[in-house]
Amino acid sequence: REGQTDRVGECDRVRDKVRIGLRMPAYIITIILFGVFVDYDDGKGHGHDPHSNETHHEGNPMDLYPMFQDVHVMIFIGFGFLMTFLKRYGFSSVGINLLLAAFGLQWGLLMQGIWHLVDGKIKIDIFKIINADFSTATVLISFGAVLGKTSPVQLLIMTILEITIFSINEHLVATANDVGASMIIHAYGAYFGLAVARVLYRPGLRNGHENDGSVYHSDLFAMIGTVFLWMFWPSFNSAIAEPGFTQLTAVINTYLSLAACVLSAYAISSLVEHKGKLDMVHIQNATLAGGVAVGTCADMNIGPFGAMLIGLIAGIISTLGFKFLSPILASNLGIQDTCGVHNLHGMPGILGGLAGIVAVALGKKENGDPAMQAAALASSLGFALVGGVVTGFIMKLPFWGQPPDQNCFDDSIYWEVPEEEEANEESLAHADHSKNKAEA
Amino acid sequence: REGQTDRVGECDRVRDKVRIGLRMPAYIITIILFGVFVDYDDGKGHGHDPHSNETHHEGNPMDLYPMFQDVHVMIFIGFGFLMTFLKRYGFSSVGINLLLAAFGLQWGLLMQGIWHLVDGKIKIDIFKIINADFSTATVLISFGAVLGKTSPVQLLIMTILEITIFSINEHLVATANDVGASMIIHAYGAYFGLAVARVLYRPGLRNGHENDGSVYHSDLFAMIGTVFLWMFWPSFNSAIAEPGFTQLTAVINTYLSLAACVLSAYAISSLVEHKGKLDMVHIQNATLAGGVAVGTCADMNIGPFGAMLIGLIAGIISTLGFKFLSPILASNLGIQDTCGVHNLHGMPGILGGLAGIVAVALGKKENGDPAMQAAALASSLGFALVGGVVTGFIMKLPFWGQPPDQNCFDDSIYWEVPEEEEANEESLAHADHSKNKAEA
Amino acid sequence: REGQTDRVGECDRVRDKVRIGLRMPAYIITIILFGVFVDYDDGKGHGHDPHSNETHHEGNPMDLYPMFQDVHVMIFIGFGFLMTFLKRYGFSSVGINLLLAAFGLQWGLLMQGIWHLVDGKIKIDIFKIINADFSTATVLISFGAVLGKTSPVQLLIMTILEITIFSINEHLVATANDVGASMIIHAYGAYFGLAVARVLYRPGLRNGHENDGSVYHSDLFAMIGTVFLWMFWPSFNSAIAEPGFTQLTAVINTYLSLAACVLSAYAISSLVEHKGKLDMVHIQNATLAGGVAVGTCADMNIGPFGAMLIGLIAGIISTLGFKFLSPILASNLGIQDTCGVHNLHGMPGILGGLAGIVAVALGKKENGDPAMQAAALASSLGFALVGGVVTGFIMKLPFWGQPPDQNCFDDSIYWEVPEEEEANEESLAHADHSKNKAEA
Repeated sequence: REGQTDRVGECDRVRDKVRIGLRMPAYIITIILFGVFVDYDDGKGHGHDPHSNETHHEGNPMDLYPMFQDVHVMIFIGFGFLMTFLKRYGFSSVGINLLLAAFGLQWGLLMQGIWHLVDGKIKIDIFKIINADFSTATVLISFGAVLGKTSPVQLLIMTILEITIFSINEHLVATANDVGASMIIHAYGAYFGLAVARVLYRPGLRNGHENDGSVYHSDLFAMIGTVFLWMFWPSFNSAIAEPGFTQLTAVINTYLSLAACVLSAYAISSLVEHKGKLDMVHIQNATLAGGVAVGTCADMNIGPFGAMLIGLIAGIISTLGFKFLSPILASNLGIQDTCGVHNLHGMPGILGGLAGIVAVALGKKENGDPAMQAAALASSLGFALVGGVVTGFIMKLPFWGQPPDQNCFDDSIYWEVPEEEEANEESLAHADHSKNKAEA
Repeated sequence: REGQTDRVGECDRVRDKVRIGLRMPAYIITIILFGVFVDYDDGKGHGHDPHSNETHHEGNPMDLYPMFQDVHVMIFIGFGFLMTFLKRYGFSSVGINLLLAAFGLQWGLLMQGIWHLVDGKIKIDIFKIINADFSTATVLISFGAVLGKTSPVQLLIMTILEITIFSINEHLVATANDVGASMIIHAYGAYFGLAVARVLYRPGLRNGHENDGSVYHSDLFAMIGTVFLWMFWPSFNSAIAEPGFTQLTAVINTYLSLAACVLSAYAISSLVEHKGKLDMVHIQNATLAGGVAVGTCADMNIGPFGAMLIGLIAGIISTLGFKFLSPILASNLGIQDTCGVHNLHGMPGILGGLAGIVAVALGKKENGDPAMQAAALASSLGFALVGGVVTGFIMKLPFWGQPPDQNCFDDSIYWEVPEEEEANEESLAHADHSKNKAEA
Repeated sequence: REGQTDRVGECDRVRDKVRIGLRMPAYIITIILFGVFVDYDDGKGHGHDPHSNETHHEGNPMDLYPMFQDVHVMIFIGFGFLMTFLKRYGFSSVGINLLLAAFGLQWGLLMQGIWHLVDGKIKIDIFKIINADFSTATVLISFGAVLGKTSPVQLLIMTILEITIFSINEHLVATANDVGASMIIHAYGAYFGLAVARVLYRPGLRNGHENDGSVYHSDLFAMIGTVFLWMFWPSFNSAIAEPGFTQLTAVINTYLSLAACVLSAYAISSLVEHKGKLDMVHIQNATLAGGVAVGTCADMNIGPFGAMLIGLIAGIISTLGFKFLSPILASNLGIQDTCGVHNLHGMPGILGGLAGIVAVALGKKENGDPAMQAAALASSLGFALVGGVVTGFIMKLPFWGQPPDQNCFDDSIYWEVPEEEEANEESLAHADHSKNKAEA
C-alpha cells in the first residue's frame, strides 16, 4: 500500500509538471488569438459571406439570447450533472465538464470562426456563442465514453483535437440539413468518443470496478442533468433554425419526439428488467434519445406523427442498447463506454441522420438533397472514427497522467475530497474490529 | 419473509402483464390520434373560433417561448423535485413525475384541442403547449396526495381521466377570469387528488410508515423543486395573460404575493413549532401558497397591496393547515395526503377563487362578473370531487398492481435501487451481531 | 449536557419572543408602505426623472423579463445553493437565503424607488424588480461572510440596514459606470460583510469547528449554485445595459471573462494544492470571480482580449486569496469569512473598479470620467466599511438570539432536522459499545 501510494505520488508529480508546462501557455495562446482575431459583432458586414447561415440579424441582436441560455444550461448543468451518477466521481463529472466546456467554447469560437472572417475578424454575436456551445457538446459526449478513465490533461488534448476536427467536418457538410445536429454533433461526438475508448481499452476493468456504479443520491443528482436536458432540448434543436414558423416547427417536433420517447423508454425498461422494474440508467439516458434522433428533421415538415414516431423508436433502441448492446461492445469489441453514449448519442444520432435522408427524399424540406444528407452522415462518422482513433493514440502517450486502473472512477486522485466516508469506514472498522475481538 | 417476497413477486408479474397489455397500445393510440388530428400552427386561421382566448398571435410565433420554458421547468423540475423529500422515494418522485407529465401533455393537447379545431385540426403553437403543461399540473398536484401509495399504472389511468375531466371543466368556465388557474388547476387538482386519496384510504398506514419521512439530503433535493417553482411562478400566472401591461401586472402581482408569502410562512412556522424552530415541510410548501392564491386575480388591478395581502394570508393558512389540519384530515376523515396538497393547492386555490370574486365585484377587472367567478369555483370543486371519487374507484380495481402497505413509500418496488444502503445495514448488522456475540 | 440544553432552550424562548415581537410588524409595515407608495408601471410618465437611467421602456414592457428570470435564478438558486457546501447547514443556507432575499427585494423596491418617485409613486416594472434583486445580492454576499454564526433575526436586521445604505450609495454614484456592479454590489457587499464579521469575531472558533466543512454530497449541492451563477452571470452584467449592441457587448465580455477565469482558477488550484489536486472551494468560487471583475467594464469597448485578461487575473487572485489570504485574515485580523467572500466578491470587485477606471481613462466608454469611477469605488468601500461596522454593533446586541459557538454551522438550532444521523450514530454507538464490552 505504501508502494502504491508512492507510485501514485510520482504520477501526480509528473502530471503537475505537465500541467504547469502545458496548460497555462495553451490558455494564454488562446487569449492572444482572441486579441488578434476576435471582435464584437457591430451589426455591420452581414451577408457578405456566402457560406454563412446567419440570417438571424434582423432586429435586436439579443433576440436569440434566451435560446442561448437554454443551450448553456444544457451544456453546463445538463451534461455536467447527467454524469454525476457515479458514486465517487461527481466532483470530476460536474467539475471537469465545466473546465472542458469553458475551454472548448473558446477554442470552438476560433475554429468555427476562421471559416467566416469579416474584415479579417471573427465577429462574435449570440448566434456564434450558441454554435460555440454546440462545438463543446461533441467533447462532452465523448467525455461520457471515457468518463472515469482519463486525466484532465488527456481530456484537454481531446477537446482541442475534437473541436478542430468537428469544425472541419461541420464546414464541409454545411449545405446538408442538420439543424439539431443529430449527425454532426451527436453521432460525431459519440463515435469519436467510442474510438478513443477503444484505443484506451483497459483489460483490467473487464470485470468491472467497485466505483463504477451509482448510489441513491448520486442517481438523483444525475436526474437534475437529465431533466434539464430534456426540457431545453427544443431550444437546442431550434436555436439556429430560421426564425418564425420554421423555428416553431423545430420546437414542436422536438417537444413531441421527447414526449413520445419518454413513454417508450419507460415501457421497454420495465419490459426488459427483472420483475418489471425500471432502471435508472435507462430513465436518465434513453428518455433523451428522442431529442437526438429528431435533430436532423426538426425543422422539416415531418408532422407531429412523424416526430413522435421518431421519438418512440429512439426510446426503444436506446433502452435496448443499454440492456443488450453495451455489454457486448465491452466484452467483444473492447469498447468500455462508461455512460453508454453509444445508446444515447450514437445510435439515435444515426437514426436521426437516416430519418433526415428519408424526410428530404420525401420532400419534407425545400431544396433538400438526400444524397447530400447521406454524405453528411458518412462524413460525420468518418471524421469521428478516424479522428477518434488518432486522438486516442495521442492521449495514450505515457506522459499525460492517465490514472491506473485501481484509481479509476475515483475523485480523490484529482480532488481534495472531504473525509466523511473514511470516518464512517473507520467507525465500521472499529465495529468489525470488535467483532474479531469478540470472536477471538 | 419468503412468503412476503413471493407475494410481491406475484404482484409484479401481474403488473407486468397489465403494463405490457395496457401501456403500449395507449401510447400508440395517442400517437395515431396525433397523426389524424394534430398539425403545426401555420399562422393562418386565427380568430375564427369565438371560444378561443388566443389573442397572442400577432408578431413572432416564438414570443411566448421563454415563458413556456419557465412553465416547463416548473412542471418537470419543480413538481418533480418538490416530491423528492421522501427518504426512499426520490426515483419515483422525479421519475414518475416525468412519465406522467410526458404522457399528460400529449393527452392534454388532444383534450384541450378538440374544443378549438381549425379545419378539423388541432394547430399546435406555443400557447397550446403552455396550456398542455398546465393540464399536466392538475395531475401532478393530485399525484402529491397519493404519493408513495399508488402504482405507475394507477397513476397513468388517473392522468387520462383527470385531464379529460379537467378539459371539460376548463371549457365550461372559459369565460370566468382565472389567468393563473387558482380554481381550475390548483383547487381542482388538489380536491381531485384528495377524493382519490379518500377512496384509496389505507387503515394500515394510520400510525405512519417508517419510510414516510425525509432525510437531510432528500430535504435539500426538495428545495430545488421549491425554489424553481417559487422563482418561475410569475411566468405560470402570466404566460397566457394579455400581452403588454396586463401581462406585466400578472408578473408583478405574483412576484409580490410570493415575496409576502415567504415572510408569513417563516413567521408562522417558527411560531407553531417547538422552540421556535422552522419546519422544512412548511418552507418547502407554504412559501408557494402565495403563487397559488394570487392566480385568479393576477392580471387584475388589485394593486401591490392587494397582491401582498393575498400572499400574506396564503402563507398563514397554508402553514397552519400543515400543522393542524392535515393530521385531522388523516385521522378523522381518512384522507392521507402525503404531500399536503390541501395546504399548498387546496385551501390557497379556494382563497384565490374567493379573492377573484371579491376583486371582480370591486371592479378590478373590466367585464368581469362575480357570479361567473363563483360558478367557476363551484364547478371546479364539483368536477374535482365527483371526478376524483369515480377515478379513485377505478384506480381501486384489484388488477393495477397497487403496492401493499409495507411497500409504500419505497422505490425498490418499482426501481432497481443501488445497494449501498443494504451494504451499510449489513455492516451495522455485523456490528450488532458482534454485540450479541460479545454479550453471549 | 442537560444544562447546555436548558441554556439553548432559554435562548430559544427569548428568540421566540423577539421573533414574534419584531418580525410580523416589520413585514406588515412593509406591506402598508407598498399600499401607500407603490403602483404598477403603466407605461406613462417615463423620462420625467432626470436621475433615471431608465431608457428601457420603448416596446413591450416584458422585453427584459427573461433577463430578470436569469437574475432571479442567480439570487435564489445561485446564492442559495452555493452556500450549501457546509455539511450540516444546508437548510439554513438555502432557506435563510430565500427569507432574506424575499424580504430584501421588498425593502429594496422601497429604498431604491424613493429616489425616483413618479407622481408620488414608485412605479414597478421589470427594470425595477431586476434592481430589487440586485439590492438583495449585497445582503446575500454579506451573508456568506457570517454564514453559520448569526441568527435569522440578526440577518433580517442586516438586510434592512445594508439595503438602506446600499441605496444611498447607489444613488450618490449613479453617474459612474458600473453596469455589472463590481463596485456598488460586489465590493460593497463583501466589505460590508467582512466588517460585520470583524465586529462579531468569535475567539472560540479560532481553531475551527467540526461542522465548518463539507461532505461529499454537500459539495455537489453547492456546485448547483456555482454553475447557475456562472451560466447566468452574463445576464446579471447586461440586464440593465443599454439595449442593442451595448447589451450584446456586456453579454460577450462577461461570457469571455468567465470562460478565461475558469481556466486560471483550475490551473492555480492544482498548482497550489497538495499533489496537484483541485480544491472544491476554489472551483465553487474562484471560477466566478471573472464575472465579478468584468462587471464595471462589461458594457465598455474593452475588446475580447481585455475581457479575457480581466477574467484570467480574477481567477488567479481569487484562488490565491482562498489559499493564502483567508487564513491570515482569520488569524491576524479576526475576520472569520465563512464563504471567503473576500476572494470571490471583495478583491475581484476592487479589481473590477480599478479596471473600470483604466478603461474609462483609455476612452473605452463614451462620456466616462475616470475620477468619477474612482470616487464611486471609494464611496462604495467607505459606505461598506462604516455601514458594516455600525450594523455589526447593532447585530451584536445581546437580544437577537445569536447562536453560541458550539451551535454554529448547525441547522438543528433553527430547524427541525430529520433524525437519520442520530440513528446512524446510535447504531455506531451500539457497535462501539459492543467493542467496549468485548474488550472488557
